[in-house]
Amino acid sequence: MKRLLIADLMRSQGELDSVLIQGWVRTRRDSKTFFFLEVNDGSCLKSMQVVVTEKAEGYGTSKSITTGASVSVKGRLVPSQGKGQMWEIQADSVELVGEADESFPLQKKRHSNEYLREIAHLRPRTNLFGAIFRIRSKLAYAIHSFFQEKQFFYVHTPIVTASDCEGAGELFRVSTLDPKNPPLDEEGNIDYKEDFFGRSTYLTVSGQLEGETYATALGNIYTFGPTFRAENSHTSRHASEFWMVEPEMAFCDLAADMDLAEEFVKSVISQVMESCSDDLALFFNFVDKELKERLEFVISRPFKRVSYTEAVDILLASGKDFDNKVEWGVNLQSEHERYLTEEHFKCPVTVYDYPKELKPFYMRANDDGKTVAAMDVLVPGIGEIVGGSQREERLELLKANMAAHGISEKDYWWYVDLRRYGTVPHAGFGLGFERLLMFITGVANIRDVIPYPRVPGHAEF
Amino acid sequence: MKRLLIADLMRSQGELDSVLIQGWVRTRRDSKTFFFLEVNDGSCLKSMQVVVTEKAEGYGTSKSITTGASVSVKGRLVPSQGKGQMWEIQADSVELVGEADESFPLQKKRHSNEYLREIAHLRPRTNLFGAIFRIRSKLAYAIHSFFQEKQFFYVHTPIVTASDCEGAGELFRVSTLDPKNPPLDEEGNIDYKEDFFGRSTYLTVSGQLEGETYATALGNIYTFGPTFRAENSHTSRHASEFWMVEPEMAFCDLAADMDLAEEFVKSVISQVMESCSDDLALFFNFVDKELKERLEFVISRPFKRVSYTEAVDILLASGKDFDNKVEWGVNLQSEHERYLTEEHFKCPVTVYDYPKELKPFYMRANDDGKTVAAMDVLVPGIGEIVGGSQREERLELLKANMAAHGISEKDYWWYVDLRRYGTVPHAGFGLGFERLLMFITGVANIRDVIPYPRVPGHAEF
Repeated sequence: MKRLLIADLMRSQGELDSVLIQGWVRTRRDSKTFFFLEVNDGSCLKSMQVVVTEKAEGYGTSKSITTGASVSVKGRLVPSQGKGQMWEIQADSVELVGEADESFPLQKKRHSNEYLREIAHLRPRTNLFGAIFRIRSKLAYAIHSFFQEKQFFYVHTPIVTASDCEGAGELFRVSTLDPKNPPLDEEGNIDYKEDFFGRSTYLTVSGQLEGETYATALGNIYTFGPTFRAENSHTSRHASEFWMVEPEMAFCDLAADMDLAEEFVKSVISQVMESCSDDLALFFNFVDKELKERLEFVISRPFKRVSYTEAVDILLASGKDFDNKVEWGVNLQSEHERYLTEEHFKCPVTVYDYPKELKPFYMRANDDGKTVAAMDVLVPGIGEIVGGSQREERLELLKANMAAHGISEKDYWWYVDLRRYGTVPHAGFGLGFERLLMFITGVANIRDVIPYPRVPGHAEF
Repeated sequence: MKRLLIADLMRSQGELDSVLIQGWVRTRRDSKTFFFLEVNDGSCLKSMQVVVTEKAEGYGTSKSITTGASVSVKGRLVPSQGKGQMWEIQADSVELVGEADESFPLQKKRHSNEYLREIAHLRPRTNLFGAIFRIRSKLAYAIHSFFQEKQFFYVHTPIVTASDCEGAGELFRVSTLDPKNPPLDEEGNIDYKEDFFGRSTYLTVSGQLEGETYATALGNIYTFGPTFRAENSHTSRHASEFWMVEPEMAFCDLAADMDLAEEFVKSVISQVMESCSDDLALFFNFVDKELKERLEFVISRPFKRVSYTEAVDILLASGKDFDNKVEWGVNLQSEHERYLTEEHFKCPVTVYDYPKELKPFYMRANDDGKTVAAMDVLVPGIGEIVGGSQREERLELLKANMAAHGISEKDYWWYVDLRRYGTVPHAGFGLGFERLLMFITGVANIRDVIPYPRVPGHAEF
């Protein structure tokens, strides 16, 4: 007899005579001559109510079928008398597969998210975390579908890299040298020529530069993979290991880049709202009462576009007493971003043309001599969710920028080569996958949307 | 005017009056009063032939439109007079976007794959590597589609991990400690409590154990992410960084696991044969003349299933003089695997029930006391492509296995917990993504199917 998923049974169009479900008991309620089980198999948020009467095979031996136990239930799918569910199963037989004694940590009561992080291996068995990680899966697939349907090619950029374009302080070193007795060169320094890859290597902070090499060959590409930051940040929005999406398009300018970012964010949120409506309802009802309205707002209205200069003017004219002083040339801080999206425009905002001093070497210089063709998409409640730019495709300007940023042309010869051989205008952006998931679910802490979060001091499991 | 992809134009149902294409010049052929360009934009294998006559705008300034240059072409899509293509473009205008002088390394001639690895940033601009990486993208998406349509959930297991279940010799250490002056503890050893994560951390070799925690909550899950081996292997089949697919299913035994592996391999190959027929034709015609037949064979016939014991008997009865002696209890070597698939059965073979001494601690003990419920799928030309098992779900047996393998229960308390609380039979497998891509394309060296391969001594780009 083939096991059926509860997600499918919940959508059944009629009664079914003989079904088999297997899952974990969420609750048990006993009456004199029968008992109820709520069985969840992880395929959906809802549990299946199972009615076990004295007539059911296994009734006598079912004492140890308690919260957390795994069970195998055969029976008839019939309309439920109780409220809250369409279908229930009248058990013909019930079998204990694996018991869970009273030490099982997820007894029927509310646990704090902080506590559940300590049992991250069990938390997907709760309603909240089951829903988060089903949505995470659907969101990842929506991202792939969006790009694949647009004929973008998925590129796996390397995780281990010798590149170090954002400054060594924030990088994790990858090595197989014996840390106690590393080989030394003639000057007494550690000789990384002896290391596994014959040089110093780190975990990647971005696949963009390698992504550009593929965009200038295949046209439209995207990456979707893990990236790393060794920052000692202890905030609810930073993780040391997170997944990033980075599309890159040849023959593309900043305007088309902003168009794509907006279409992308709207499309994947729409897809998830459609495919995860049951799971999302949990967040709408219990996590953030304004979430539903916010998501619907984002997918249905155009994002506002303002230049950095306009944004600064708006902030200066706001009369607000910001903790971080606003003037042309400063980085926008979280409080500024939130003012723009939550108070002034009340919608997502794409800010473009940032002062060049604030941005990395690869961004394209604008003709004003002061700004670069960069853009950030800011959303209410989260702040920056997308950061992108048109890339500097002009050889001499790129070389000057690299010199100004102290970046060695020799180390990045291959990146410079793209400007030597058939250079093209191109642009792209990066989106933090977990940030987007936080925005969609209203979950406030990044540690709660990653199966096993890595943050300073924590690499459990 | 909107840029159109050459892939779409090649499928055009009729002439088009006014189109814009942008891409890179593969070749140029000059006549007295006109010239031909072959323009490729990466969207497909085929290049678009462009005819530029004296009447075309930009004709006079087009001297520098040579191999490797990027161009923007406007014109009419018309039936081609030449052979080998259905459509060509009669240019109204042609514009040089970025030139490529004679130092451009991909002039019209055949280059060795070894040479092209040295210019891995440019090789996707060749027919062969363009095709490989388009197929790589489609194969990745086929994998996601296969599992998502079966209601499996995609889980991102951690890349940085404190787990070390396959022996420290093969692991990359991840650290932010100052390698020259690491902090020492009272006994003079490096104090990893001071390291970024407060402990020793490594790059993951597999997401399986964490995957099991999610399968025993969500039911059916899969991982698809990078994994790492610090083995000093210099073969054409080993890379230090590669992507792995690892499904894991609750309430699943070895037989169903083998069923899934077979269905999975067939399905993703079929999908790629359908969606990449043009690109695949290149490999059928120029890389491996038997490839097409082999792939069609694999997707259309049942895989043969034999127990390890039967496989050993077949090898012993073969009369072959193997380099590695065959007897019950030894690991099957590449030559044995190839004999089984290529000579004896002439089809993919799933070998199951291996001697327990050959396999890791988590595999489920069979009742014979000698074997475990493991399985490998072997394919012609590659050998092992899938390795999987039913996992030991019985607490006491798992603990005994861990003790026998010298694995600390304390370090894996969360893994053991799965057997304490609602344990269920479960099974899964791992598939090396690049191995599968090699099988599908016939490409012999793993370095040629990874954008920027990482192998001992190499982490360029």
